[in-house]
Amino acid sequence: MQKNPVELILKKRNGEILTQSDIEWFFSLYHQGNLPEYQMSAMLMAMYFNPLNAEELAALCHTMIYSGEVVDLRTISKPKIDKHSTGGIGDKTSLILAPIVASLGIAVPMISGRGLGHTGGTLDKLESIPGFNVNLSLNEFKGQLQTVGCGLIGQTKEIAPLDKSLYALRDVTATVESIPLIAASIMSKKIASGLDGLVLDVKTGSGAFMKDLHQARSLAKTLISIAKSYEKSCSVFITDMNEPLGYAVGNWLEVQECIACLQGKPVPDLMEVSLTLSGAMVQLSGKCETLEEGVALSREQIKNGEAWEKFLEIVQSQGGDTAMLQSPQNYPQSKHRLDIPASETGFIQTIDAQTVGFCAMQLGAGRQTIQDKIDPKAGIVFHKKCGDEVVKGEKILTVHTGKSDVVEQVTKRMESALVISPKKVEAVSKIIEKIPMNNEK
Amino acid sequence: MQKNPVELILKKRNGEILTQSDIEWFFSLYHQGNLPEYQMSAMLMAMYFNPLNAEELAALCHTMIYSGEVVDLRTISKPKIDKHSTGGIGDKTSLILAPIVASLGIAVPMISGRGLGHTGGTLDKLESIPGFNVNLSLNEFKGQLQTVGCGLIGQTKEIAPLDKSLYALRDVTATVESIPLIAASIMSKKIASGLDGLVLDVKTGSGAFMKDLHQARSLAKTLISIAKSYEKSCSVFITDMNEPLGYAVGNWLEVQECIACLQGKPVPDLMEVSLTLSGAMVQLSGKCETLEEGVALSREQIKNGEAWEKFLEIVQSQGGDTAMLQSPQNYPQSKHRLDIPASETGFIQTIDAQTVGFCAMQLGAGRQTIQDKIDPKAGIVFHKKCGDEVVKGEKILTVHTGKSDVVEQVTKRMESALVISPKKVEAVSKIIEKIPMNNEK
Repeated sequence: MQKNPVELILKKRNGEILTQSDIEWFFSLYHQGNLPEYQMSAMLMAMYFNPLNAEELAALCHTMIYSGEVVDLRTISKPKIDKHSTGGIGDKTSLILAPIVASLGIAVPMISGRGLGHTGGTLDKLESIPGFNVNLSLNEFKGQLQTVGCGLIGQTKEIAPLDKSLYALRDVTATVESIPLIAASIMSKKIASGLDGLVLDVKTGSGAFMKDLHQARSLAKTLISIAKSYEKSCSVFITDMNEPLGYAVGNWLEVQECIACLQGKPVPDLMEVSLTLSGAMVQLSGKCETLEEGVALSREQIKNGEAWEKFLEIVQSQGGDTAMLQSPQNYPQSKHRLDIPASETGFIQTIDAQTVGFCAMQLGAGRQTIQDKIDPKAGIVFHKKCGDEVVKGEKILTVHTGKSDVVEQVTKRMESALVISPKKVEAVSKIIEKIPMNNEK
Repeated sequence: MQKNPVELILKKRNGEILTQSDIEWFFSLYHQGNLPEYQMSAMLMAMYFNPLNAEELAALCHTMIYSGEVVDLRTISKPKIDKHSTGGIGDKTSLILAPIVASLGIAVPMISGRGLGHTGGTLDKLESIPGFNVNLSLNEFKGQLQTVGCGLIGQTKEIAPLDKSLYALRDVTATVESIPLIAASIMSKKIASGLDGLVLDVKTGSGAFMKDLHQARSLAKTLISIAKSYEKSCSVFITDMNEPLGYAVGNWLEVQECIACLQGKPVPDLMEVSLTLSGAMVQLSGKCETLEEGVALSREQIKNGEAWEKFLEIVQSQGGDTAMLQSPQNYPQSKHRLDIPASETGFIQTIDAQTVGFCAMQLGAGRQTIQDKIDPKAGIVFHKKCGDEVVKGEKILTVHTGKSDVVEQVTKRMESALVISPKKVEAVSKIIEKIPMNNEK
């Protein structure tokens, strides 16, 4: 029987299950430009209300993966392990763990996104390094993996192009927040990029996409189910994003923090997450048996300076100015730098990550629309974090911006993001849980 | 604050209530061509899942009504009363009640639609009369109301044009079946057409849009709430559409049945519904106090021949061939006419209206897509109805068609639509209930 787009939308709308062939037909037709956007957006909204089941999701992933090229990395003999995070404020772990893992002889084929809204993007952080080129061709990327062991690039037009067009449509039709659609978007790109194993960091909390743990777990399980069906090894962690990760928020400010961490500076929460994720990547590569061993090996790469050396090598090979990394004090600073002091004496209980993200965006560190230009110098640097004791008047953070007109508003907004308690507050682990791979379907 | 289409879709999707200004802004933007169809279809799907409440619906109706012209019929001194049916199989009551009511000195400004899918449209029936012109301009329509007291036309471009474009989009995005959206579509056109009162026939059953009584009641109440907010008097009936109405299904075949009824032929179910609705129209006009008096006055117009005379007058004034109405035996007949006999002796328990509708469409009486051409001669004529006794081999119905290739399939399908019971079956009233006007909000 000939398929009809309206009948398939109706079927999904009515809560029936689409067949593999229904999904492949509908989405391929769209990809070929033969299905109007208004039918796709109606379908996506129906899928928001009646989420895809495992079989429907597998069919969608398949269609998205094969809408482009599946990168063949078989010529690279090293294990190829990547990490993906669902995004958060101050989330700069990629810049720390990629050199750690690559320095251990594991290939890290990392294809990242840009920031939109209040969360930052790895590409924007990398591009704050003068000269850094994230736009390698697929062949250059493969060469980079062969020689340096790590490539940090943006999504190429060859990889899952259907994901790109669907994401753009979801973004303007309020159909982003569907766990199966999010999972398909993440995994189709990752599977098409030719990796062997993937570590996933699903963030939850005020500054994350998944506001509650229940949603985060649901996404984690969905991601695992897709990885399994493509026989990719996978580790999934749920990590906390109620407070920004590390002290810096803003592109170059975060790179600076990574430089310090790679040189051994102890930033507890940031290094806990970075080392856990890199440890899991090492474990997935087969270089060690347990996560703990992977973490220990990773920690050693910081200590012995090899991770830092690898970072310089990656930056150099992608055209970045390594002299600037070695003398970050030479980087231009924001014209306006304003300290915000503690309003009372006590212990910091809350630094609301979502508010921090919105403030950083207003300061120039992020973009509200895809056309906005980013100021790499702008952002927020904290001097205190949750659990720290503060004395009234002591500076908690400094805002950096070139825009004098936003300072007052941001200052007010940031003050509202801070809660100081008279009672001692314990800093908690940022690793909420590791989702076991084998208990899941 | 400036409104943003995505935020409004998100709001509706999340189950929040849109303000009057949200709805007017969003739908007006679309009407002006400044909102892409993919955002409107996502919104409509969100509205399917999170139906509009009374205030949202009022705002949508308002926007739809004022997207075009509100017809000013104040120069016509007679009360202006219309009837609208949600559509069914063999539903030809308009052609009977319009002349009845007009012959009583009430203006009937009837703007009808075409059939699509398995239900027929009044315009298609009228156009089966040679020469009949349903495409009058608004001025011609007003003239017709002034002189003849009744105009039977199609939707003009001036009346609720936003409804037309929205309906077309809903049709191709599986977002038709939403009670508030259906109600807004019906009422915006009716209110814009300048009437004083409206009788609504909400059909329920196998051959109707509303398959169950619960849905039908919900639509009826929604229609009443809109009528009230525009201070239009309104009577709503829920009528049965499990069996086709009358004996004939198919455009000219139905006109022929109406001719017979207007000349006094008793077709019990068809005349019960037609006289009830016309009685309610007469009652709404103020020409009588009760529904019963309205029905009695209507019945008298059939008896005294005035309704029939008025029908001829209407047809003549709209360019139709009245000689053909007076000698319907001169109308060309379908090439293929096949009787279907009773498969056993007993009482007819079921004639499934939906199947009859689909069969009539296959025979050429309806269109599957808006481009399809209708064969006015095609359709089905029943010789027996539910409750009638039949003897095995006695003919139950005759199919009329020009397409020899569908006869076999339709015959089989029609046989499956008939259920004959050995036990006596009572024919029941087609008027299920009248929805009281004043108990509703």
